[in-house]
Amino acid sequence: MSQLDNLSLFQNRIDNFLKQKLAEISINDQRLFDAMNYGLLIGGKRMRPYLAYVTAEMLDLDLEDIDPIAAALECIHAYSLLHDDLPAMDDDDLRRGQPTCHVKFDEATAILAGDSLQTLAFEIISNHQFKNISAATHIKLIQMLSSAAGYQGMCGGQAMDLAATDKKVALEHLQTIHRLKTGALLQAAILMPARCREDLPEQTFIGLQQFAQQIGLAYQVHDDIIDITSNEETLGKPAGSDLDANKSTYPALLGLEGAIEKEQQLFQQALSALEALPYNTRNLSNFSTFIIKRAH
Amino acid sequence: MSQLDNLSLFQNRIDNFLKQKLAEISINDQRLFDAMNYGLLIGGKRMRPYLAYVTAEMLDLDLEDIDPIAAALECIHAYSLLHDDLPAMDDDDLRRGQPTCHVKFDEATAILAGDSLQTLAFEIISNHQFKNISAATHIKLIQMLSSAAGYQGMCGGQAMDLAATDKKVALEHLQTIHRLKTGALLQAAILMPARCREDLPEQTFIGLQQFAQQIGLAYQVHDDIIDITSNEETLGKPAGSDLDANKSTYPALLGLEGAIEKEQQLFQQALSALEALPYNTRNLSNFSTFIIKRAH
Repeated sequence: MSQLDNLSLFQNRIDNFLKQKLAEISINDQRLFDAMNYGLLIGGKRMRPYLAYVTAEMLDLDLEDIDPIAAALECIHAYSLLHDDLPAMDDDDLRRGQPTCHVKFDEATAILAGDSLQTLAFEIISNHQFKNISAATHIKLIQMLSSAAGYQGMCGGQAMDLAATDKKVALEHLQTIHRLKTGALLQAAILMPARCREDLPEQTFIGLQQFAQQIGLAYQVHDDIIDITSNEETLGKPAGSDLDANKSTYPALLGLEGAIEKEQQLFQQALSALEALPYNTRNLSNFSTFIIKRAH
Repeated sequence: MSQLDNLSLFQNRIDNFLKQKLAEISINDQRLFDAMNYGLLIGGKRMRPYLAYVTAEMLDLDLEDIDPIAAALECIHAYSLLHDDLPAMDDDDLRRGQPTCHVKFDEATAILAGDSLQTLAFEIISNHQFKNISAATHIKLIQMLSSAAGYQGMCGGQAMDLAATDKKVALEHLQTIHRLKTGALLQAAILMPARCREDLPEQTFIGLQQFAQQIGLAYQVHDDIIDITSNEETLGKPAGSDLDANKSTYPALLGLEGAIEKEQQLFQQALSALEALPYNTRNLSNFSTFIIKRAH
């Protein structure tokens, strides 16, 4: 497995920032608070925060302005997992090798904890006193977050994904699903920091956007591949669970070999997008390698 | 029943604005879009938008700056109803005399529609080009919305309310529940427009806050009262449903007479708060009367 520079450093950084944000909340309902805490801090790779931090480093930004962006993205991601795991949705009992939130607590609490984590994302990003960006850029960041999270982003993708269960969909349709469901938030993790560099040439922004789109898809293709090739212990959830549910996946559509080939194409396109950028893109390039090598 | 000036005018205004916002969304998943539309436009009294508009009129604000505030509040309110009605929460089949969202569609769609409506609230308010407020005030509005909606507001109140089911709680605890569950959003409907009047003296802001707190509680006390005294046809949901579930309510705690007396106290306190304000408060005063006279 490829190693990511500073991965644990940034994992610790975002965990500490999230803990601090949770500690600032005055407790009304302990059970809901515990469930939010569980959903947010149980673990996870913190890929979105990592992407946000390394993009910011590449652009020589003050990381203290990136903390709330990384935290808001992680809150949105965490809320989506809580709701995706619900019995009415994917009905998963395990997540990262631990009981899912509705199993550990109960369904009502998991629904409300998800709802509260979504709000917390907007609370964190709107309340942060940014050091180096204008109020107009601050508003722009909130626009980008809401656009990535909602109907035209992650949520819409999740609905399309559910609708595609038990159906064979065209490759283009599958890509739209993943562009929204997973891609929108990963893209935001790169482009929100990019917006904080207020003098960034539009061409560079577009280059980063192209990179983000390719690795967003590669991420999902690889997720589909390891769901088949990994075992339960490595994955922390029942292996093959996506195939069992007759979901539309790249291996289901292209075969395992075809999916691996597709992943390689996306990887190469991502690297090409990076090459055009006038920055040291080593961490983003390593991230792309990491994406297609990871075992879980 | 007391009449509210311009109620239907403002109902039409917010409905048209919400329809316009939904029309601007590019369709990915038709079913999710239909469920969002159903949750947002099936009806309702539009009390939060009404409060926002009449507060803005009183303060001589441009109503075009109030549309996104009213719409965001209504999106948050609508999402909370979709999730509250779910089988794992209140398990209601009827809402405003119509099938609830998860009955009309399905649970997964109702969960995602609620999630998307919450995001839409932040999307609408962050994307609006305000005409008369600074970017700093724009950010402040988003802070106020997130604070009213999340763990320390509506969501927290809903969790406390669920936790209080089948329990007898103290009056103070019940008031905290309602201050959060219903009060926070009603208060935001008054105070978000107030923040748009950037030269508003702090004392006036505090006076409006006091008014908002009293009518927020009165609103909930009256809800509890009519749940007992109304019939199903008037209410659009099974009468006495809150008592059936052994929820903590004012009539359950104070008796019906005691609850009516409590409501009168809150009403008088709300009027007192208004009297101190250097504005024509007739519409807010009428609103208070409306709150405690309405039959559903």
